[in-house]
Amino acid sequence: MLKLRQLNTAAADFEAEFQRVLHWSAETDAAIETRVAEILADVRARGDAAVLEYTARFDRLSADSLAALELSREELRAAFEAITPAQRQALEAAAARVRSYHERQLEACGRSWSYRDEDGTLLGQKVTPLDRVGIYVPGGKAAYPSSVLMNAIPAQVAGVPEIIMVVPTPGGEKNPLVLAAAYVAGVHRTFTIGGAQAVAALAYGTATVPRVDKITGPGNAYVASAKKHVFGQVGIDMIAGPSEILVLADGSTPPDWVAMDLFSQAEHDELAQSILLCPDAGYIEQVREAIERLLPTMPRAAVIKASLEGRGALIQTRSMDEACEISNRIAPEHLEVSSKEPHRWEPLLRHAGAIFLGAYTSESLGDYCAGPNHVLPTSGTARFSSPLGVYDFQKRSSLIEVSEAGAQKLGPIAAELAYGEGLQGHALAAEYRLRGRV
Amino acid sequence: MLKLRQLNTAAADFEAEFQRVLHWSAETDAAIETRVAEILADVRARGDAAVLEYTARFDRLSADSLAALELSREELRAAFEAITPAQRQALEAAAARVRSYHERQLEACGRSWSYRDEDGTLLGQKVTPLDRVGIYVPGGKAAYPSSVLMNAIPAQVAGVPEIIMVVPTPGGEKNPLVLAAAYVAGVHRTFTIGGAQAVAALAYGTATVPRVDKITGPGNAYVASAKKHVFGQVGIDMIAGPSEILVLADGSTPPDWVAMDLFSQAEHDELAQSILLCPDAGYIEQVREAIERLLPTMPRAAVIKASLEGRGALIQTRSMDEACEISNRIAPEHLEVSSKEPHRWEPLLRHAGAIFLGAYTSESLGDYCAGPNHVLPTSGTARFSSPLGVYDFQKRSSLIEVSEAGAQKLGPIAAELAYGEGLQGHALAAEYRLRGRV
Repeated sequence: MLKLRQLNTAAADFEAEFQRVLHWSAETDAAIETRVAEILADVRARGDAAVLEYTARFDRLSADSLAALELSREELRAAFEAITPAQRQALEAAAARVRSYHERQLEACGRSWSYRDEDGTLLGQKVTPLDRVGIYVPGGKAAYPSSVLMNAIPAQVAGVPEIIMVVPTPGGEKNPLVLAAAYVAGVHRTFTIGGAQAVAALAYGTATVPRVDKITGPGNAYVASAKKHVFGQVGIDMIAGPSEILVLADGSTPPDWVAMDLFSQAEHDELAQSILLCPDAGYIEQVREAIERLLPTMPRAAVIKASLEGRGALIQTRSMDEACEISNRIAPEHLEVSSKEPHRWEPLLRHAGAIFLGAYTSESLGDYCAGPNHVLPTSGTARFSSPLGVYDFQKRSSLIEVSEAGAQKLGPIAAELAYGEGLQGHALAAEYRLRGRV
Repeated sequence: MLKLRQLNTAAADFEAEFQRVLHWSAETDAAIETRVAEILADVRARGDAAVLEYTARFDRLSADSLAALELSREELRAAFEAITPAQRQALEAAAARVRSYHERQLEACGRSWSYRDEDGTLLGQKVTPLDRVGIYVPGGKAAYPSSVLMNAIPAQVAGVPEIIMVVPTPGGEKNPLVLAAAYVAGVHRTFTIGGAQAVAALAYGTATVPRVDKITGPGNAYVASAKKHVFGQVGIDMIAGPSEILVLADGSTPPDWVAMDLFSQAEHDELAQSILLCPDAGYIEQVREAIERLLPTMPRAAVIKASLEGRGALIQTRSMDEACEISNRIAPEHLEVSSKEPHRWEPLLRHAGAIFLGAYTSESLGDYCAGPNHVLPTSGTARFSSPLGVYDFQKRSSLIEVSEAGAQKLGPIAAELAYGEGLQGHALAAEYRLRGRV
C-alpha cells in the first residue's frame, strides 16, 4: 500500500499541509563548496594539467594531454552510425522539431529593431548571438541524449558559431546515444571531461579548452556549485532543482494516463515531485487505484514509490478555478491541463515552465520531441524565469544615435537631472553638444 | 600632471599592458558575506521586528512599526510638487521618453505567440508579467532619481501590477528628487528601508512588506551580497561592477567633448573606467591636453583624477578596424562611436551594453533621457548579458497542445528516446496515447 499524501482544500489544516508539500530547499553543502572552490582555483592557475589530474582521479580516465580527450566530429558520426536505425530516426525527428520550434522563437523575439523619432534620433536594440558557449552533459546514470538536443539546438539556432560540449566518460565509457545526439545537434567540439574541473576549463579557458561566454546544462552538486561560482565570469543558465509535474484534471482523461504521467516525473529521482489537482473526489480515487495497480509493473518502481511518498500529493479542490489558483501558487515546472476544455483554464494559469494542454499532450511528448525546450524553471522559479531558449544564447545592445537637433532638446533635460544628482561631468557633456557652446 | 596610462597596439608589451587595464575582479569580503547571511536569516525568522531593529541601528531611523516606514502616494506627490518646475519638467520628459522606448521594446519582443503544425498540434510561448517586483534605490551619496525611472518604468510597461520600492533614508533624511521620480514612474508602494534587511524583507516577505518575485536595482556591497544570497528564492538583475565608458574615436569629434565624456564616467567613483581607442596619435594628444586643461575646473576633480590614473587608458590603435576588435575584447558597458561614420563601424561591434553613435550622442544623454535603459552589463558581461528591459519583468511559459493525430506521430519518437534513456514511465505515457492502446 502506497502512502500517498491526500489533501483537500476544504479541510481546516489544508494550508499547513500544503506548505509541507511545497517545502523544498536546496541545502548547500559546505564541504562541496570548499572543494569546488579549490578545484576552480587550481584549474584557473594550472589549466590543462589540473584538468587532466582531476579527470584521472574522479573519472578514472588518464591521458597524456587534454587534446587526447577531445572527440573528433568523425567519432561522433561513428557513434551516430552505430546506434539502431530506429534510434537514429527518433533523434533526427526530435532534432528537426526542436529546431523548427526554436526557429519560430528566433523570429518571434530574436531580431534587432530600431526606429527614429521626430528629431531624427535613432533608438533601438541590436541582437547578437554569443560568440562561444559551453554545454555540460552529465555522464553518469542520468546521461540524457535529449538534453544534448535541448541545449545545443537553441544555441545553434541563435547563431552561436562555436558550441563546446563537455561530457564525463567515467572509466572511459562513452554513451553512444549522447555522442550521436551531439552529432545530430551540430556540436562543434567535444571534450570527455566533467565535474567542476570541466566547468572551470570552460569558464577560464585552458591551453586546449577555449574560454566560453556562457555555460548551460544540468549536472550534479559539484557542477551546480561550480556554475554558481563562475557566474559573472561567464553566463550560466538556471541551477535546476528536482523536476516537478502538476496535473490539473477535470476527470475526463483516462486515469491510467494520468497515473503514468505522474510516474514519468517520479521516476527521475526520489526528490522529483508529482501532484494531482482535481475537484472530483471519485476521479482522484480512480487515479489512486491506477497508481496502486500500475506501480508494481514499473521497472523503476522503487524510485517512483519513494518520490510519490516523499513529495507527491493528490489534492482535491472545490473547483477547477481553485485548482488554477493553487497551481499558480506552486508555479510548477511542468503543468498538464488534463481537461476537455484546456483553453478555458489556460488563461487563468500565470506561472509554469511549460503548459501541456489536453489529454493527448503527455509531458513526455514535450520532454523529447514536441519542439519546445525541456529545460524549464523548477522549484517555483517559473514565477520569474523562463524555459531555456534562443534568447539565452543571444544578448542585446542598446543603439542610440542622437541627431544634432535631438541633442538640443535632450541636452537641457539631461543637464537638469545630472546637476540634481551632483554629476557635473554628465551635465557638461550634454551641454557641450548645445549649439553655440563650442 | 595627470599620470594617464597610454598604450599602443603596435608596442611589444601591448598585450601585457592591456591585460593590466582589463583586470578587475570583485573581491568578495568574507566578513560582509557572513554578516549578510545573519541579517537575512534574522529577517526571515523574525520579519518586521528584525527589519525595524536593523533600520534603527544602520540607518539611525526608529519607528514603532514597519507600517510607519511606508510612504504614501500622497507623500510622493508632495515631493514632486516641492521640487523646482525645471526639475519636474525634466523628470517628466525623461520618463516619457524612457516609457516610449520600452513600449517599443514590448512590441518588438514581449508578446505571446503560437502556431499549429500540419497535425493540428499547437506550439507557442505565453509571455506574462511578473506579479510583483521590488526595486532597490540607494539612499546615500549615490542617490539617483534617474535609476528610479530606469528600474520602475520597464516593470510598469511590462504590466507588473505591483512595484514595491525600498529606499534607505539615513537619519530620516529623504531625497525629494528620488521620491518625485517614484511618483512620476508610478511606483505602487514605497518603504524607507535599505541594506540587506530590505532585500530580505522583499525576498521572504514580512507581515508588512509583501514578498516579491524579483529584485532589481543597484546598492552597496551589503545589498549586492544580499541579492546574490536570495537569488533562486527570487529573481535578481545583474550584480553591477564599476561603470565603464569606451570611446572609439576617428578624430572628428571636438577633443573637449571626448574629454568630458571620459570625465562623466570617471566622476562616478574611483573604480570607474574610461578608455579612449583611436588610431590618430595627434588626436589622442589633443584629448590628453583637453583632459589636463579641463580637469581642474571639475567639482569632482579628485574622484576623476583617481579614476583616470587608476583605471583609465588612452590606446592608440593601427586602425579603426583594430579599435573595433579591441572594443569587442573589452565588451564595455558604454561604447561611444565618436566618428563621422558611426554606421560603418557599428556592424563590427559585437559586445557592448549600449552603443552611442556619432559625436552628438554623449553617454550622458543616454544615461538620463534618450529612452534606452541605463542599467547595463558591466565588467565584460556584455559578452553574454543585456540591458535591463521589459523582458526582465516578464517570463515565458511554453504552450503545447498535441492533437490526437500528433500524438500518434510523436508517441513512437518519444518512446524510442525514452527507452534509450531508461525512462520507461516516459515511454509508456507516450504509448498510452497511441490509438488502440486503451
